[in-house]
Amino acid sequence: MRKSLFTMLLVTLCAVVVKAQSITSPDKNLTLTFELQANGVPTYKLSYKKKPVIKTSKLGLETKDVPPFMDGFTVSKTETSNFDETWNPVWGEQKSIRNHYNELLVTLTQKAVKDRFIRIRFRVFNDGLGFRYEFPSQPNLNYFIIKEEHTQFALADDHKAFWLPGDFDTQEYETVTSKLSEVRGKMKSAVTPNVSQTTFSPTGLQTPLMMKSQDGLYINIHEAALVDYSCMSLNLDDKNYTLESFLTPDAIGDKGYMQAPTQSPWRTVIVSDKAGDVLMSKLVYNLNEPTKYKDVSWIKPVKYVGVWWEMITGKSTWAYTDLESVQLGVTDYTKVKPNGKHGATTENVKKYIDFAAKNGFDAVLVEGWNQGWEDWFGKTKDYVFDFVTPYPDFDVKELHRYAASKGVKIIMHHETSGSVRNYERHLDTAYKFMVENGYNAVKSGYVGQIIPRGEHHYGQWLVNHYMYAIKKAGDYKIMVNAHEAIRPTGLARTYPNLIGNEAARGTEYESFGGNTPDHTTILPFTRLIGGPMDYTPGIFQTRISAYNPANNSFVHTTLTKQLALYVTMYSPLQMAADLPETYEKFSDAFQFIKDVAVDWDDSYVLEAEPGDYISIARKAKGKNEWYVGSITDENARVATIKFNYLPKGKTYEATIYADGKDASFDKNPQSYTIRKMKVTSKTVLKQQVAPGGGFAISVK
Amino acid sequence: MRKSLFTMLLVTLCAVVVKAQSITSPDKNLTLTFELQANGVPTYKLSYKKKPVIKTSKLGLETKDVPPFMDGFTVSKTETSNFDETWNPVWGEQKSIRNHYNELLVTLTQKAVKDRFIRIRFRVFNDGLGFRYEFPSQPNLNYFIIKEEHTQFALADDHKAFWLPGDFDTQEYETVTSKLSEVRGKMKSAVTPNVSQTTFSPTGLQTPLMMKSQDGLYINIHEAALVDYSCMSLNLDDKNYTLESFLTPDAIGDKGYMQAPTQSPWRTVIVSDKAGDVLMSKLVYNLNEPTKYKDVSWIKPVKYVGVWWEMITGKSTWAYTDLESVQLGVTDYTKVKPNGKHGATTENVKKYIDFAAKNGFDAVLVEGWNQGWEDWFGKTKDYVFDFVTPYPDFDVKELHRYAASKGVKIIMHHETSGSVRNYERHLDTAYKFMVENGYNAVKSGYVGQIIPRGEHHYGQWLVNHYMYAIKKAGDYKIMVNAHEAIRPTGLARTYPNLIGNEAARGTEYESFGGNTPDHTTILPFTRLIGGPMDYTPGIFQTRISAYNPANNSFVHTTLTKQLALYVTMYSPLQMAADLPETYEKFSDAFQFIKDVAVDWDDSYVLEAEPGDYISIARKAKGKNEWYVGSITDENARVATIKFNYLPKGKTYEATIYADGKDASFDKNPQSYTIRKMKVTSKTVLKQQVAPGGGFAISVK
Repeated sequence: MRKSLFTMLLVTLCAVVVKAQSITSPDKNLTLTFELQANGVPTYKLSYKKKPVIKTSKLGLETKDVPPFMDGFTVSKTETSNFDETWNPVWGEQKSIRNHYNELLVTLTQKAVKDRFIRIRFRVFNDGLGFRYEFPSQPNLNYFIIKEEHTQFALADDHKAFWLPGDFDTQEYETVTSKLSEVRGKMKSAVTPNVSQTTFSPTGLQTPLMMKSQDGLYINIHEAALVDYSCMSLNLDDKNYTLESFLTPDAIGDKGYMQAPTQSPWRTVIVSDKAGDVLMSKLVYNLNEPTKYKDVSWIKPVKYVGVWWEMITGKSTWAYTDLESVQLGVTDYTKVKPNGKHGATTENVKKYIDFAAKNGFDAVLVEGWNQGWEDWFGKTKDYVFDFVTPYPDFDVKELHRYAASKGVKIIMHHETSGSVRNYERHLDTAYKFMVENGYNAVKSGYVGQIIPRGEHHYGQWLVNHYMYAIKKAGDYKIMVNAHEAIRPTGLARTYPNLIGNEAARGTEYESFGGNTPDHTTILPFTRLIGGPMDYTPGIFQTRISAYNPANNSFVHTTLTKQLALYVTMYSPLQMAADLPETYEKFSDAFQFIKDVAVDWDDSYVLEAEPGDYISIARKAKGKNEWYVGSITDENARVATIKFNYLPKGKTYEATIYADGKDASFDKNPQSYTIRKMKVTSKTVLKQQVAPGGGFAISVK
Repeated sequence: MRKSLFTMLLVTLCAVVVKAQSITSPDKNLTLTFELQANGVPTYKLSYKKKPVIKTSKLGLETKDVPPFMDGFTVSKTETSNFDETWNPVWGEQKSIRNHYNELLVTLTQKAVKDRFIRIRFRVFNDGLGFRYEFPSQPNLNYFIIKEEHTQFALADDHKAFWLPGDFDTQEYETVTSKLSEVRGKMKSAVTPNVSQTTFSPTGLQTPLMMKSQDGLYINIHEAALVDYSCMSLNLDDKNYTLESFLTPDAIGDKGYMQAPTQSPWRTVIVSDKAGDVLMSKLVYNLNEPTKYKDVSWIKPVKYVGVWWEMITGKSTWAYTDLESVQLGVTDYTKVKPNGKHGATTENVKKYIDFAAKNGFDAVLVEGWNQGWEDWFGKTKDYVFDFVTPYPDFDVKELHRYAASKGVKIIMHHETSGSVRNYERHLDTAYKFMVENGYNAVKSGYVGQIIPRGEHHYGQWLVNHYMYAIKKAGDYKIMVNAHEAIRPTGLARTYPNLIGNEAARGTEYESFGGNTPDHTTILPFTRLIGGPMDYTPGIFQTRISAYNPANNSFVHTTLTKQLALYVTMYSPLQMAADLPETYEKFSDAFQFIKDVAVDWDDSYVLEAEPGDYISIARKAKGKNEWYVGSITDENARVATIKFNYLPKGKTYEATIYADGKDASFDKNPQSYTIRKMKVTSKTVLKQQVAPGGGFAISVK
């Protein structure tokens, strides 16, 4: 070759070599490679034990008002570093969490945009990858509006996926289990009706997205630290199995208002050939900032009962009257005939307080205590609640006194009805009212279309609002359990008073038609990545008609599977959701719920397969007690329970609450057995599980 | 005729006779007729001294989610009544106001909509008509969404009109004077640029809309009591000169969310053959609810100076630094180099306080005192201000002490930058801060695109917000002067702490290119119908280049016309807007501003023609002092000033501040004379007025 041509080739090769940069996980199983393509398009790829997980995938953002961040980049700097620290969460599945990663920080400059530069930070953990865009302070970058983020995840194959239809307003769909190639065909039937829903694509998917490859690789895509940004959904190109980020628009179609210096949330990819590693992954938490709260003594896990299920089933009502329409401050409730079915009465709440006190529960949730429930639903009503004015039959002061005298708290309820400006207007008053009346935790709700109209539950506007409510709650030392809000992205590390979210199809849907028997064998792989769920299990009376003859729904689990959920569905907030009178009929089984801990020193996945079964053991925080939960889908199975996490050389008593021999979720859900046996660290238990069944073990 | 046909004819005639219903004004000059057309379409018409003012015009509302309120009505009831009371406003042009009308209340039922019914209430005063829709409580009417209101005003002719382009976000256009038939051709040039503007039709117009017919009838269309509803603009059909209501949409195109029982605002038509009657009309106030405030002692008219004009002209800056971009709570201002041109410094404010104290002014407005001004404009920035954190060179405590020691108040400034959620989040804190630091009045501003995005300055969402801010201010005993907010509709009767609005092109535009010389001869006929304007006159140095050589604008009035404005532009809030050092150079002319009252026992229109000239006299509240102001447009004239409102048989001393012989607004604005003369109730003064000029008289 001619000398100049050779030089050119060499330089090009070097340039090519220089442009690609790789780091691995600490254990070297994962390899992340960043590479700039021709035209200066940034890409990355991820492999696990040399198998491709994410093939070469583009990165970038499209903008509305400044030149886009899509191409024309050169790599002006790369820095690598590593990090290894252990931190202790305020509550969690483990007492301490190791944060151990290798990092690659790439600085990319667009010469054609006056040398404007951004950074992409990659962190590779043993269990996966996280990366985010950063927009540093600089003369040529100030305010900009995102039109769309274009982060790709080019999957290697037509994986099996556990997915929810992509939607800007709800996650209350049944998870669909199918190959990626089948998403399009199954989308229509997957989109079941909801009072607030907005799909965006025939192949749109939500995160966390759980997948399993043909050769047994588990992959989970999500985001971490969603702060002041729009929620990311994924749009699947089902021709080549590439997912691309699809942000939530605001009322005028914009997808993000940014001011440098700033950053996107982390995009996360958890990878393992062991399903249990996905369940136990702390990657999303590790990517969040440590908490700045100095005093966290007021943040405590809660086991509670509540005036709730009786309304969900239709046995009683949230509303005090049957008026079609009310106006707060105008409607005089003392002059209106009550409907006689109101759940949240002083008398009824006292019964729950007594039950809680008698059984060692921390709190009683009360819904329907405040004026406005007559026309709260589906009316897009602005001034729907004021969060401080009770119905005439709910005596705030008396219940404060009574609850305190029994050592029980009442959990406040703030249903916003999606009327977010109204909630913010009342927020300080509402939180003050809580503090003055002995409430230290609130369940908030966002049922219905968002007001301001045109905004979505998962847009930047609402993401900002949820954070506002959590931070302000922190100022008042109040814990928050937000329903119908954004699914969590590990923010509870920074704001540990965010002790719960719903953000998925919960137990209430068992009363609205039923959940599938495999529902809770999926949720820990999907919804629970990023934060706990207030799933509110514990339904012993699985036939709803027993409470409300008009309701033919039934809970699609056996009774002992409901017990197992207290272990398999990790949450620092656990409800015994059924009615006290039902628990009193099954007090032997109820003993497990009384005993089970809500905070843990450590957790161990014994067996797990998404959509099929989960068996988990956990050690209660600061106690020599362990709890095991095992659940299955519609198929019976034999679970294998090891006890090798017990201290060696000691013997413990295990109480096993299991399905009866002939139990099944649909035909014989209430058939169960309770037996005791001695166990040591060497014990291996084989336990039969009924269809839609499960079992729970307490070890002391 | 056959007997049955005859009967039918007779019944039809009777039905026709029964369906039309008329009432007159107390003095019988105005006749309002309501009539149901075929298809049950409600209509009305209005005549004055037997001449048609509004020809037969349809009424109705189009809805999104319930059957429309457009036709199919029958009259199920009509009730007439009359009312005659006198009430005393907290502040105003008159000490007492007579509310005297005849009322017709029509109940209309739609048989085809399960007998759903509405009411239309008509009130006819001696100076005009007001009517509104009412939606009473009933089983078949609850929540409904307005798609559009279809209230027509069928004008009798191609009137001369003084109009602003219809717009959902701004009123800062120059008024166009033209025939209605010329609106379409003049629209394009009328729509001058504004940071937040949204026109809706090539023949869209704002209210108040002032008109004059060929035979000298003055007609003004506006609305009263705009509460929890969308602002009404008018769409002109220029083929037949019919105006129709055009409401402001929200982010998704809806025009109103209603819950029965409720009502629309009043649609008002002021009519007279005397221009002065329009100026003096209290119809809009009379249609508003009396105030419920028990204690109004904290509401006082204010004469003020301010650290403001020096920034408007460009002599100094609102911002403390020249940073391109700041983040509240992050940017450390103590570490940033100040730009050396900051207006709101402790030292400078003290100078204004001294000046105010020396000259008997109540207060000093200070803009630019708080962090965030570097990037507040045009960035659609969410967390733009916190309303409590001052710049390092503005000492809140010291200025509180200093102002109090001099008996002067500081007027707070809350520029929201259109970021309304942010303002509401900080509102309580901001008002508390005011109370703690001695501020009892706030000028608020809404410059820029509204956030939440997609909403408009004049939509229901913002109308609700402005009311929220005013009511909450009332809780803190704070007076509000809201700029860039909705133009007033008489709500200051109910909320007398709303002491001012801008909502039109004010004095600042003299520095942004200039206002036309006839501008202020129009505003009292348009903008001031419904409430006062913080016009901020008093500019003596009319060449802006004297303050900022880069600014070639000039004020399009003579110096003494600026004095006259304190009388012709009624406001309980009056600013001497120029710089103290300028006033000190013209202290003889400045004496008028020191003397002029800001609250009145009575007011008298001496001469007036919209767009040409206005001469007004007023009696100071509780004093034996009168003030006269007379202004003209670009044409010189001789004003005729009567003094027949002075007590008979007494002699007073009048001080006349008038244009010099060779004065004119563009060539010689600062030429003026001051002379004294004795006057009695019999005196008639002829006074020369220069082009763009005016004169002011104080009588003691």
